[in-house]
Amino acid sequence: MDNCIFCKIIKREIPAKIVYENGNFIAFEDIEGVAPIHLLCIPKKHIENFLEYPSSDMVDMSNFIKETAKEIGLDNKGFRMVSNIKEDSGQSVFHLHFHLIGGAKLKWDKLV
Amino acid sequence: MDNCIFCKIIKREIPAKIVYENGNFIAFEDIEGVAPIHLLCIPKKHIENFLEYPSSDMVDMSNFIKETAKEIGLDNKGFRMVSNIKEDSGQSVFHLHFHLIGGAKLKWDKLV
Repeated sequence: MDNCIFCKIIKREIPAKIVYENGNFIAFEDIEGVAPIHLLCIPKKHIENFLEYPSSDMVDMSNFIKETAKEIGLDNKGFRMVSNIKEDSGQSVFHLHFHLIGGAKLKWDKLV
Repeated sequence: MDNCIFCKIIKREIPAKIVYENGNFIAFEDIEGVAPIHLLCIPKKHIENFLEYPSSDMVDMSNFIKETAKEIGLDNKGFRMVSNIKEDSGQSVFHLHFHLIGGAKLKWDKLV
């Protein structure tokens, strides 16, 4: 997708701190992190959000998320995994991404 | 698991507002909702968290989440999907669950 910022990161057309990658997925740092560790795991294939993503592809996506968590050391004390879907959620880039957030004890507050 | 509150909900030993169910999964209202709609989607099989859950099972889990979202009408304006894994995340019940949160425009704040 020509105007998708995440597709441009995948193609190295704009910079990002890439922390892990395989043939189908890439993990990089969120530029507006909300915790000490805040990564985004995305498929290289452009898909708008989780609802549009084939459930069968969640096998490889889940494996990639687990591998990334282990690579970064988030598997020990844990992390929050978040995907925002459409407008109410605050989704800002319309390329499916799973936030992996950790590195400290996280807050859990009202969202409205 | 004898002492798991979610296993007791599955077995109808303690009450919950169940909104959707099939042979392998159940969706019910979070008793401490953080938004107008706040559901928990869980597998009936007791698994501690996402890291312990077989990635192959995420096909059916993802289909169930999508079906629940459609059933409740969260697929239109969207929702936030969250899973907390281990202590840093604030996971409080150690039976895998995906939060489906929506029904209003959600905040996105620093978590630490």
